[in-house]
Amino acid sequence: MKNAVGREIPEHIAGCKYNPYRGPWACIPSRQANGGKSVDAPAAEKVLKSIDAAIEAVGLRDGMTISFHHHLRNGDYVMKLVVDAIARKGIRGLRLTASSLSAVQDAIMPHLEAGVITAIDTSGIRGEIGKFVSAGKLPHPVMIRTHGGRARAIESGELSIDVAFIGAPACDIQGNINGVDGPAACGSLGYAMVDAAYADKVVAITDHLMPHPLQRISIPQTQVDFIVKVDSIGDPKGISTGSLRISTDPKELLISQYAATVIEHSGCFRDNFSLQLGSGGASLTAAKFIKEKMKTKGITAAFGVGGITGIFAEMMEEGLVNLLFDAQSFDSTAIQSLRQNDRHLEVSASYYASPGTCGPIVNNVDAVILSATEVDIHFNVNVLTGSNGRLMGAPGGHPDTAAGSNLCIVALPLVRRNFPVMRESVHTIVTPGETVDVIVTDRGVAINPLRQDLIHNLQGSGLPIMLIEDLQRLAYEITGTPTPAPTGGDIVGLVEYRDGTIIDVIRKIG
Amino acid sequence: MKNAVGREIPEHIAGCKYNPYRGPWACIPSRQANGGKSVDAPAAEKVLKSIDAAIEAVGLRDGMTISFHHHLRNGDYVMKLVVDAIARKGIRGLRLTASSLSAVQDAIMPHLEAGVITAIDTSGIRGEIGKFVSAGKLPHPVMIRTHGGRARAIESGELSIDVAFIGAPACDIQGNINGVDGPAACGSLGYAMVDAAYADKVVAITDHLMPHPLQRISIPQTQVDFIVKVDSIGDPKGISTGSLRISTDPKELLISQYAATVIEHSGCFRDNFSLQLGSGGASLTAAKFIKEKMKTKGITAAFGVGGITGIFAEMMEEGLVNLLFDAQSFDSTAIQSLRQNDRHLEVSASYYASPGTCGPIVNNVDAVILSATEVDIHFNVNVLTGSNGRLMGAPGGHPDTAAGSNLCIVALPLVRRNFPVMRESVHTIVTPGETVDVIVTDRGVAINPLRQDLIHNLQGSGLPIMLIEDLQRLAYEITGTPTPAPTGGDIVGLVEYRDGTIIDVIRKIG
Repeated sequence: MKNAVGREIPEHIAGCKYNPYRGPWACIPSRQANGGKSVDAPAAEKVLKSIDAAIEAVGLRDGMTISFHHHLRNGDYVMKLVVDAIARKGIRGLRLTASSLSAVQDAIMPHLEAGVITAIDTSGIRGEIGKFVSAGKLPHPVMIRTHGGRARAIESGELSIDVAFIGAPACDIQGNINGVDGPAACGSLGYAMVDAAYADKVVAITDHLMPHPLQRISIPQTQVDFIVKVDSIGDPKGISTGSLRISTDPKELLISQYAATVIEHSGCFRDNFSLQLGSGGASLTAAKFIKEKMKTKGITAAFGVGGITGIFAEMMEEGLVNLLFDAQSFDSTAIQSLRQNDRHLEVSASYYASPGTCGPIVNNVDAVILSATEVDIHFNVNVLTGSNGRLMGAPGGHPDTAAGSNLCIVALPLVRRNFPVMRESVHTIVTPGETVDVIVTDRGVAINPLRQDLIHNLQGSGLPIMLIEDLQRLAYEITGTPTPAPTGGDIVGLVEYRDGTIIDVIRKIG
Repeated sequence: MKNAVGREIPEHIAGCKYNPYRGPWACIPSRQANGGKSVDAPAAEKVLKSIDAAIEAVGLRDGMTISFHHHLRNGDYVMKLVVDAIARKGIRGLRLTASSLSAVQDAIMPHLEAGVITAIDTSGIRGEIGKFVSAGKLPHPVMIRTHGGRARAIESGELSIDVAFIGAPACDIQGNINGVDGPAACGSLGYAMVDAAYADKVVAITDHLMPHPLQRISIPQTQVDFIVKVDSIGDPKGISTGSLRISTDPKELLISQYAATVIEHSGCFRDNFSLQLGSGGASLTAAKFIKEKMKTKGITAAFGVGGITGIFAEMMEEGLVNLLFDAQSFDSTAIQSLRQNDRHLEVSASYYASPGTCGPIVNNVDAVILSATEVDIHFNVNVLTGSNGRLMGAPGGHPDTAAGSNLCIVALPLVRRNFPVMRESVHTIVTPGETVDVIVTDRGVAINPLRQDLIHNLQGSGLPIMLIEDLQRLAYEITGTPTPAPTGGDIVGLVEYRDGTIIDVIRKIG
């Protein structure tokens, strides 16, 4: 048989069947294993007139899975714009997967009530959506994943995304995207990178459409099917605050100082150590004390990782930290730093924390300071539900970095608003105690008995070291024994550990 | 049933079966759709003592597919080191896939003869390996792919790599890799990026093992299973010459000048146009004339793409080109530029040329100048076999950029060493004539009749425009009618078009 350039191609060659050439643009390569895309004829137009047009172009239909990232945080306009448009088209029964849900997403509540969205897969869940799910009103149980676990689930095909809608702070007309330019700059696009790489179809929603090509590219044009320009993708005030502030609250200062002292005496506080600091008050404030201790000892850190704050970026500017790995930029100082400093590296959620890889960067973290909603005497941590059982938080990278790091410190006050947060048992286990090394409170510090090396190293540190059971009893003495949250309702949610197993369930309340 | 943190997890939840949590490191996430890797316990040792140890660690066995990149070009030591070690272990029947094979790889000939390697998948094939395949001595037909087609085949799962051995000019102890540092710096690692992302197992072979983490990361630690340090991965003299030179040959100067004039009058020579220049003499030399014309007209290029030469990097330094997309750095000036200039961007073979994406950068190229071994009156191009039918070249990105670009110019002398290279029919069709717009020779310029716009625009350009049939007749007048190469032997190779179809076959000779 002759192919389209007149060459004789046998039907079978060496026992295999091959397709003869049919013309340079005649054959659309089949769907890629890697959620790849169909070939386009050269220079096919990607910029569409409206979100409605994009929904039609990608062939969205009932029952599909749509995804969003949360780098625009509480300033995000994209999810509401998209889900409103989907609802207007009468599409129903969608699974919504998001790297997290901020309070601003209460704006899509009408579409949950109307059945446009019937399943949710997310790290964080709060506000009205949290109440809706906790009340058992979502048809399918919500799936709560860690940042690393979500990347793993997407990369493994367990979480298959039909259409990713990517809020794009800067996007050129071929679909190259970055997060550092434009009026709604949010910094790193670490979570969105995974969605863009694996979704069947990708739509970029931007308010800063640029000529081709962007100089800085976080998500490549090869992954973007269509582009829609809108007036605004987000409110800069909700996307980033100014530089996050160090606390002046005496209790938080004390906790932070204890946490810094734990690191100092842990055995890992040496030249070229590595550090993760979250955006919580105690973690941020601890940076101040760690800086002082680093200067005193004359050491620098090889790298910092995580959600990056301006305080961390300033430590790099001062030469105290050599490199920053940034999966999420928490404030405008960090965003500016990512834009300008070539030692401030943008990384994907997979590089940050996925356990389904040859080793994410959290595996190389010496010390991390994390926060918690509740901790129990088995060192288990809850960062997802209130003590009343209601969904109001986010695992984020908590279980990932706890498992990966050498020294995982969880810092929290012993009592919050007269509730004991040191408990016999947390309501929801998000991070298993086996991966948590030290609990730091304003009233005492407890070391996980699995870590005899730390118990040894922290002798003579001057810290008020106690048994965790004693910390818990002290909390109950202050507040009285708490009423256990109700258990036994229908299951309304699953808490997935980063490896894909189920570590806890969320039950209906009220 | 209680999981490992004591929580009751029903066997089925909402009709689905889930796995209960078994401990933070108990569950190895399953193999990733994306050729992903198994989870490692935190900080598992990746650096192994020898290539032999790595071959054992990855579980290499008979019949598997191993891959290599050719960024170390004719200075590469890695392939020989690895295949020698494999042969010593008695492993046989492997498929070897490489982004290309340079003459230096003749060093593995004994392992082809001995059946260690029984199948080859590559872009380029030359020297003794070319002769071996052409003589029908390889058990399986060789598969010839384009750079973009290889990326597509890997991304789609058509070409599944069991173990990628990555020559790594710089590698840290966790496996972050770049190509710009170290004694064997080769610049871009564009081809290796695809292998690393999709191979089941990845072994980095480096002579420049660095502390963690590298500042510059082209291949991330998440994709690298093991690392082996060797004395040297390559000979810098074979990896890159100094800056590639502009020709002084009068015939080549004339061809280059004609090619530049075609671009000037084509209609695409305007501010912010985009350009690809290969490493061939005519293409390189044309840069000199294009520069002059750009300065005269007062325009700059939005971007350049391709294998990047120092001449292109200098055009960027001079402000004539805004950005460079570099899938392969051809000389030491280009390597230096990639290291230092943040407008010189490293891109993967997929971003460069894969048709299985939402649009590689070749789709956005206005004008490209390519070389050829032979051209025929249908504008078909052969860059793979000599007129005698022997394997001695490489499609590389030729068919990719011909299909993607708006203006594809193929520049070659009418006659080489008394052989006509303008022919009635090329021996092997690698790039279909439908995607080739202009043939430029020292004796005349032929425009593809499919491009009436170009025929119109090039009137009055002063170029010696002729019908392609007249060019061919002129060639035959000079050399006499050539003896056709033998056809009809057994099939020893397949020429895959970038979309996965078969555009031609290679037959056994003599």
